[in-house]
Amino acid sequence: MSTKLSLFFSLVTVVCFSQKRVAGPADIVNPMIGTHKMGHTFPGATTPFGMVQLSPETNYTNMFVDGKYNPDAYKYCAGYQYDDKTIFGFSHTHFSGTGHADLGDFLIMPTTGKLELNPGKANEPGSGYFSNFSHENEFAKPGYYMVKLDRYNIKAELTASDRVGFHQYTFPKSESAHILLDLVYNIYNYDGKNVWTFIRVENDSTITGYRQTHGWGRTRTVYFAMQFSKPFLSYGHKKYDNSPYNGFYRRFNEEENFPEMAGKNIRAYFNFKTEENEKIQVKFALSPVSSEGALLNLKTEIPHWDFQKTRHETRDKWNKELSKITIETQKPEDEETFYTALYHTMLGPIVYEDVDGKYKGLDQNIHESDGFTNYTVFSLWDTYRALHPLFNLIQPKRNNDMIKSMLAHHDQSVHKMLPVWSHYANENWCMIGYHSISVIADAIAKNTTDVDLNRALTAGKNTSTVPYFDGLDSYMRLGYVPEDKSGNSVSKTLEFAYDDWCIAQIAKKTNNTAVYQEYLKRSENYQNVYDPTTRYMRPKLNNGKWKEPFDPLDTHGQGFIEGNALNYGFYVPHNIDLMIEMMGGKNKFAAQLDQVFSIKLDDKYIAKNEDITRDGIIGAYVHGNEPGHHIPYLYNWTGKSWKTQERVRMIMDTMYSNSIDGLCGNDDAGQMSAWYVFSALGFYPVLPGSDQYAIGSPLVKAATLHFENGKSLKIKTVNQGPKNVYVQKITLNGKEIDRDYLLHGELYDNAALTFYLSNKPKR
Amino acid sequence: MSTKLSLFFSLVTVVCFSQKRVAGPADIVNPMIGTHKMGHTFPGATTPFGMVQLSPETNYTNMFVDGKYNPDAYKYCAGYQYDDKTIFGFSHTHFSGTGHADLGDFLIMPTTGKLELNPGKANEPGSGYFSNFSHENEFAKPGYYMVKLDRYNIKAELTASDRVGFHQYTFPKSESAHILLDLVYNIYNYDGKNVWTFIRVENDSTITGYRQTHGWGRTRTVYFAMQFSKPFLSYGHKKYDNSPYNGFYRRFNEEENFPEMAGKNIRAYFNFKTEENEKIQVKFALSPVSSEGALLNLKTEIPHWDFQKTRHETRDKWNKELSKITIETQKPEDEETFYTALYHTMLGPIVYEDVDGKYKGLDQNIHESDGFTNYTVFSLWDTYRALHPLFNLIQPKRNNDMIKSMLAHHDQSVHKMLPVWSHYANENWCMIGYHSISVIADAIAKNTTDVDLNRALTAGKNTSTVPYFDGLDSYMRLGYVPEDKSGNSVSKTLEFAYDDWCIAQIAKKTNNTAVYQEYLKRSENYQNVYDPTTRYMRPKLNNGKWKEPFDPLDTHGQGFIEGNALNYGFYVPHNIDLMIEMMGGKNKFAAQLDQVFSIKLDDKYIAKNEDITRDGIIGAYVHGNEPGHHIPYLYNWTGKSWKTQERVRMIMDTMYSNSIDGLCGNDDAGQMSAWYVFSALGFYPVLPGSDQYAIGSPLVKAATLHFENGKSLKIKTVNQGPKNVYVQKITLNGKEIDRDYLLHGELYDNAALTFYLSNKPKR
Repeated sequence: MSTKLSLFFSLVTVVCFSQKRVAGPADIVNPMIGTHKMGHTFPGATTPFGMVQLSPETNYTNMFVDGKYNPDAYKYCAGYQYDDKTIFGFSHTHFSGTGHADLGDFLIMPTTGKLELNPGKANEPGSGYFSNFSHENEFAKPGYYMVKLDRYNIKAELTASDRVGFHQYTFPKSESAHILLDLVYNIYNYDGKNVWTFIRVENDSTITGYRQTHGWGRTRTVYFAMQFSKPFLSYGHKKYDNSPYNGFYRRFNEEENFPEMAGKNIRAYFNFKTEENEKIQVKFALSPVSSEGALLNLKTEIPHWDFQKTRHETRDKWNKELSKITIETQKPEDEETFYTALYHTMLGPIVYEDVDGKYKGLDQNIHESDGFTNYTVFSLWDTYRALHPLFNLIQPKRNNDMIKSMLAHHDQSVHKMLPVWSHYANENWCMIGYHSISVIADAIAKNTTDVDLNRALTAGKNTSTVPYFDGLDSYMRLGYVPEDKSGNSVSKTLEFAYDDWCIAQIAKKTNNTAVYQEYLKRSENYQNVYDPTTRYMRPKLNNGKWKEPFDPLDTHGQGFIEGNALNYGFYVPHNIDLMIEMMGGKNKFAAQLDQVFSIKLDDKYIAKNEDITRDGIIGAYVHGNEPGHHIPYLYNWTGKSWKTQERVRMIMDTMYSNSIDGLCGNDDAGQMSAWYVFSALGFYPVLPGSDQYAIGSPLVKAATLHFENGKSLKIKTVNQGPKNVYVQKITLNGKEIDRDYLLHGELYDNAALTFYLSNKPKR
Repeated sequence: MSTKLSLFFSLVTVVCFSQKRVAGPADIVNPMIGTHKMGHTFPGATTPFGMVQLSPETNYTNMFVDGKYNPDAYKYCAGYQYDDKTIFGFSHTHFSGTGHADLGDFLIMPTTGKLELNPGKANEPGSGYFSNFSHENEFAKPGYYMVKLDRYNIKAELTASDRVGFHQYTFPKSESAHILLDLVYNIYNYDGKNVWTFIRVENDSTITGYRQTHGWGRTRTVYFAMQFSKPFLSYGHKKYDNSPYNGFYRRFNEEENFPEMAGKNIRAYFNFKTEENEKIQVKFALSPVSSEGALLNLKTEIPHWDFQKTRHETRDKWNKELSKITIETQKPEDEETFYTALYHTMLGPIVYEDVDGKYKGLDQNIHESDGFTNYTVFSLWDTYRALHPLFNLIQPKRNNDMIKSMLAHHDQSVHKMLPVWSHYANENWCMIGYHSISVIADAIAKNTTDVDLNRALTAGKNTSTVPYFDGLDSYMRLGYVPEDKSGNSVSKTLEFAYDDWCIAQIAKKTNNTAVYQEYLKRSENYQNVYDPTTRYMRPKLNNGKWKEPFDPLDTHGQGFIEGNALNYGFYVPHNIDLMIEMMGGKNKFAAQLDQVFSIKLDDKYIAKNEDITRDGIIGAYVHGNEPGHHIPYLYNWTGKSWKTQERVRMIMDTMYSNSIDGLCGNDDAGQMSAWYVFSALGFYPVLPGSDQYAIGSPLVKAATLHFENGKSLKIKTVNQGPKNVYVQKITLNGKEIDRDYLLHGELYDNAALTFYLSNKPKR
């Protein structure tokens, strides 16, 4: 963060305090962290887990240029890149930290002067409606974003409730002020992505409509209701379709002041006259169901025009959520890093229902959530690892609702599958495994869910037996996924085996011994892809032979997805002891771990994969991506816990910071941040689905976790310091414990956990 | 009708009788009438006013060829042309008799042999999946259609309930039988018409999904649920899109046995093995709301697999409706013509809601009909003339529901307008005027509606004051539509003036004198487009001058739509006496009428307009189109009623018949047929919105109308005969009446009406 920016923040903070509001952890969060390079976070305004995530778009890119994939598009997964000097507007939906993208619905841009509907090109100043801006005139805090649009001298402020974005634009005096509603803009846009769009001008200040897109979500429709704080003088739109036929609408001048606009690609505008410093506000509600639902959301959540009221209510929500963990840190900047990470764990999944409980289901029918809140955006390959386990500590009620949303998804699925990647009433099938079952098993193990166990077990069994899913037919027949039948076969085999262990755990709870045994057997399938000769997990063919040639460092065509045999091959979280034995015993295994962290990976293994960059790499350990997140903790199983302690502190120090590039890779819907939150507290869920946490080395000096049930966990350190990363002793409620793990139940019960630290390993 | 076909019909009739079912008027109807040339009727299976209208498609045309409008497409407004030798399948939605088109949803085609998904071209035998067929092996009666598909030796039978099509295919023995579901096919198809389609294979015999199109209806979505009587062995689809991106679905073999198919253009198939003469049945339900709604409709309406049961139930429904008028005719074929016309009056509007009352509204939200059944397909420029007045006699309950549907449309309209052309939750704006108000005023005048009068008046006022609608702003300012501001200006002025008179009538009933006076004044606007010099209605410019040059016979650019000054200029139904006076008095006017019927219209005036063909013309009188339908009755106002009597009998004789080309023009959603039904009974509603019928000359020997309230109207003739077209005397309940009109109230009250006829005019 630049000094100038810091000063600016301080000034604004003073302003906030002068309004006599109690400061809280929300003020410590810096939403700009991760907006530089590949963090893929967004700086805009949202509530915790809110449906509306209203944030600036700093470029207007296409996913394809001249028919080829445009690698630049990847930077804009969350719409914002810190290096850009341009703002094209503010849209209402964003994924936080994902490595593939969609959304960017309903781009709003205020302008003045001659009406310009063409967005223009960032590298051609003045070529369209976009504005330049400067970070000096930009400010972001949870639930609030502000920027000055230099070209138009408009101050743009954004806040949001769960389902309603609230814009406040302070205009200069202008005879010709405009607010644009650009429905062509998409994140990961391409010609044909918009399936249909519709705008209806209900009266002189209220607009409704919807947009239907065909992107990462196959067919996704978002409805909206938009309200201006003052009537527009006139309005219109331009259509960028070339449909050969337009029914009888051609009999109208549809383009100007005609209250129904529709087509595949349209941009609308609303004209105003403004006085100097006049504020025009826009409330913009979303709905998964209908424009009627959006209007209901709008009227229910923000029935007033008091921007500050909504801003403060949202800040209060953030303070409430963020205050669930209070910390003392060694350095002030650690506090910023920690609370920003915690903030980033609450940007997904998002609420996906109207205020009356109606939502669109995976079957495209309208459902009503019965006894739960429906959520979407489950990036499960990422988030089952640490994010949902974190929810089981500090968001158990929401996590329980998420599980119910997953079961509803299963019930609505024609495949009868739990979500792989739940995406606004779509399944986008991104990545591998059926990790919903891990999330469910983890909540069952930690007693944070009230879902029917047999229902959960049935859903897990159904999901794990869909023959056409990702090599499952072969997996069920052969005990492994053959690489020649289904690529990334080792990753799949390892993760299926882990998920099967989770199913077995649920079966055990239901006392269903047959299913328990069946899935316990399946959970051993990882053994079928271990090659004792090379001592690597490696891809096997349908004929039972290993695939040749084999390069354990290559991330492509070698049986792994976004990883290689070296850094992905240790994925047997449910049978670590057996894995270590299989791989040659504790010492050999520890040496292999050392190799992971120390090997110099050739550039050729990195350049090919956009999810893996130098920034996120230590040796061959890729912290910037998920499959290895448990690896630093594996030393615990080798009798060398001090190496875990050393590594995790080193990773926290080098892979995270409070600067704009403080994330070493995609935050991946909060998983990267959840890793940090856990690790900073001193423990990590290596095996979701069990009640154990592996012990690491806390970064904080002290912390208190305030649980929803009123109980708390107090974490203290003795002799904490930058070099004192080694744990000498741990006491729980005053009694020393001599083990490498903690149990959820003992932490969740008004526990006092003290780490005694030293600058020397305890060997 | 060919002799062979007659024989075939007779044989089938015998079969029907052998099942001991009582013969009824449904057996007299010939749904093939109007399928030749420009009648635009369809021969397939439907219930009265049913949502599903399941009928064969005899070609697979495109609306545009090489970027130009394909005039051949016009023939296929209802999907079927009698001259064709080919059948491409059976689709579930059709407009009856319209002069512009859409629909053709969900084309089903049974085939055998090698799977062929390309439809092929009718002029290239064997080029695709289509079959040849022969009329000898074809049979159609209300609610039932049968044809042999010669190429595949498959007997196809169709029947329907209100919301469910029921197919029965009798296959030969085949190892490779298929049932295709072609979602690419559209009536008036063009590239880009399909916005999105979705198919979901729920289990081994149930399919759901939807199709969204952008055609005459701007965005129209129809949901479906499909059930096979036996499980298919396998299935698949092919996609004809070239989308650059398909999310992560590419990880599957989506094309075969993958239960979610989606895209803009897809054709699916389901594979079977069949024994000789094995029947495979398909139930296919529609819904305006959701696939869930379609499944509900399917299960509720046809919970069984008894094809004959549904066929007979539907025939019973038709018999019940058609029996509302019993007739004795002079010739047997008149009976066929009459009942087929009556049948054609009940193919639209159609029920547009699920069995639970849910429907999609014009605002694209889901509504629930409250105390009425919701209807769509209001082709009002056609149907306000005689079809809705006919409903006020024999379908008052349905007509009342239609009015409530119109008011719901108004409430959901962002323009706050009653429907112009209501089209599956869309307004397609086809043709001119705001004739919903005529339908409402007519029902109020005839006391057949219970809608709130003030609500109706408000809707009428709202509709008639939308400034951007079709020249209304100028009309309100100047008292006429200026041709240079809005084309077809005379037609618009005349029809707005008539509609305004209807609004005045409603205002009168509410005792709202101010509105009554205001609209009575507006209803005189026809005077503003009468040019006493030329003695024609003619187009006036914004500056108050007549448009030059003026050709009263030209149908283009002369202020009229689908008509000219000669045949459209007499449209002042609400002030006929004043119009006649304005035009020079009774004698001059009668002479002008004579001229209409006797002038030899040059070909150049006809060729340009596809709605007007030689078949439908007598002089310059175009019976094949609507604007002149009242003209033959106008002689009544000139003291020359005998000429009305002569003309209407002549028109019935020459413009209608029981042959396949028995309609002289588009049936226009039943208006042409309604004209015939009224005229055959001896009277006609020249002025909908009043309680008067103009007296003509009955074609029937006798008739009884059985009203819904249990009362009846008995019509008798004395001395009826082909040449005895002149009315000498009329008695009502035994008392002679000396006037040219009848009142609705007197007919609707167990009346006995006797026409004494002669071969000589009563002068």
